[in-house]
Amino acid sequence: MKQTRINKLFGIEHAIIQAGMVWTSGWKLASAASENGCLGLIGAGSMKPDLLSEHIQKLKNYYKENNINKPFGVNLPLIRGDVKDLINTILKEEIKIVFTSAGNPKQYSDIFKYNGIILVHVVASVKHALKAQDSGCDAVVAEGFEAGGHNGVDEITTLCLVPQVVNAVDIPVIAAGGIASGAQIAACMALGAEGVQIGTRFAATIESSSSSSFKQKIVDAKDSDTYLTMKKLNPVRLLKNKFALNVIEAERKGASADELKEILGKKREMKGIFEGDLDEGELEMGQSSGLVNDIISVKDLVNRLLNEYSIAVSNI
Amino acid sequence: MKQTRINKLFGIEHAIIQAGMVWTSGWKLASAASENGCLGLIGAGSMKPDLLSEHIQKLKNYYKENNINKPFGVNLPLIRGDVKDLINTILKEEIKIVFTSAGNPKQYSDIFKYNGIILVHVVASVKHALKAQDSGCDAVVAEGFEAGGHNGVDEITTLCLVPQVVNAVDIPVIAAGGIASGAQIAACMALGAEGVQIGTRFAATIESSSSSSFKQKIVDAKDSDTYLTMKKLNPVRLLKNKFALNVIEAERKGASADELKEILGKKREMKGIFEGDLDEGELEMGQSSGLVNDIISVKDLVNRLLNEYSIAVSNI
Repeated sequence: MKQTRINKLFGIEHAIIQAGMVWTSGWKLASAASENGCLGLIGAGSMKPDLLSEHIQKLKNYYKENNINKPFGVNLPLIRGDVKDLINTILKEEIKIVFTSAGNPKQYSDIFKYNGIILVHVVASVKHALKAQDSGCDAVVAEGFEAGGHNGVDEITTLCLVPQVVNAVDIPVIAAGGIASGAQIAACMALGAEGVQIGTRFAATIESSSSSSFKQKIVDAKDSDTYLTMKKLNPVRLLKNKFALNVIEAERKGASADELKEILGKKREMKGIFEGDLDEGELEMGQSSGLVNDIISVKDLVNRLLNEYSIAVSNI
Repeated sequence: MKQTRINKLFGIEHAIIQAGMVWTSGWKLASAASENGCLGLIGAGSMKPDLLSEHIQKLKNYYKENNINKPFGVNLPLIRGDVKDLINTILKEEIKIVFTSAGNPKQYSDIFKYNGIILVHVVASVKHALKAQDSGCDAVVAEGFEAGGHNGVDEITTLCLVPQVVNAVDIPVIAAGGIASGAQIAACMALGAEGVQIGTRFAATIESSSSSSFKQKIVDAKDSDTYLTMKKLNPVRLLKNKFALNVIEAERKGASADELKEILGKKREMKGIFEGDLDEGELEMGQSSGLVNDIISVKDLVNRLLNEYSIAVSNI
């Protein structure tokens, strides 16, 4: 793959970021991604501060025991009620790379920068990309409508979002949303992205900590099997299982934010992704699930992505 | 640009199709696109059979007078009540290339094939791509969620749709939805498309027959200024003007298909696109409008697209 500012920024071989996903991106997935030349992220979204500490320490110990020296980072959703405690954990554990999402990075950018942390924010519009740049972020992830899990309100797709963000900002842009193949990585690089962030495809690896029945659902999903729901709360893309179909039906009837909150209840993500409750859980996955046909190791995945990338580049 | 089966199929220099758009793609736009090495399409969607005849004859006369011999085609939405009359016009005028959309091509494919017509159908899912192939279509247009105007119900984006359709069918795939730059053309070719269909960017050319105030709205639009509305009728992507915001508000409240039909009324497309009623008309445009910054000639546009394409390809 082409070398870009993203390789330099993180000190990584391939400009591929493994997304920090709830109940999925523990230390095993993050270390496997980093070990294989990508940037691995531990997803703090489903972790209390103590559990985050534990995952970071396990990863560090594993690297120490195996003489591995590769960069990794933490993804931090800023809407978390205990965000300050999580930031304290990140500082205490001397994390050097943080990806923030779901919120305004301005509030916390000073503390990250003061501590020498490379800061990247996930955005879904040009306006928020400019705000992230103004907040001192070192790069942005431009994530399109097709992405799994939490999503922007403007519904801009990766194909349209990436080139507009690239035009608008000076910092490097990482494309995200819908990417599961090397051909799609090549497409995003053609749009001016300097790297890609990949979620769903990494969720269906052996090292991902989500339940095996959730992983199998990613493999089984077809092109039209996900939908962006909960638009009056925080939009989230889900596999259209029993729970999601209930939400879609309620939304068609004009359900209010409060009614949706009640339908949602609590811990649906854990139920679906981690415990494998395929009917009543939230099964967060992107439209790229239609392109995922197997559960493989991270090593095999990275090799495949690089191979597909080369073929795609040589074909245009 | 790379030569593909699409160049051969139509006998065109560049694998770029100018989309047939209502109130926009008359003989002037179609001839300009074809003259400049692309495939131009006359959009029958807003024409009665007599008017379609007139446009075809004007294009033919213009070519005859100027000694031009280039292929062109007609786009035909199959939901039209007078679709049989329009097909008779197409046969009478000896059109050799037809792009069908918004319906099932199987009903009419035999008559087109019997008359030696190259048939292409626009699809928004893998399922419909397979059906189009089974119906004998020579190619499919895989059109994503970001496209302007009428759209599929599954909301699959171009980045995710194109590679899945490419995997599923043997006939060549033309990518559409959100494409306004040469970098995006390169991206779609990297995904395995063998050509692209471009709408909104061609709508904002001098030769397009839409009103100048509509064209200016395309230029002014930002990344987040369009939205997919009318989901309980036929989904359509519109600029969020006064009319569209009314529809969005009604949909949030759970408006039924009948209520939406009443809000829609009649001839909103003509009002918006052709007459330039910017408040009460339907202003159909894609998310790519955020990438359109000027109204230029088709010749200048094609040169720019090819130039941007070369730069993007050399950069990956």
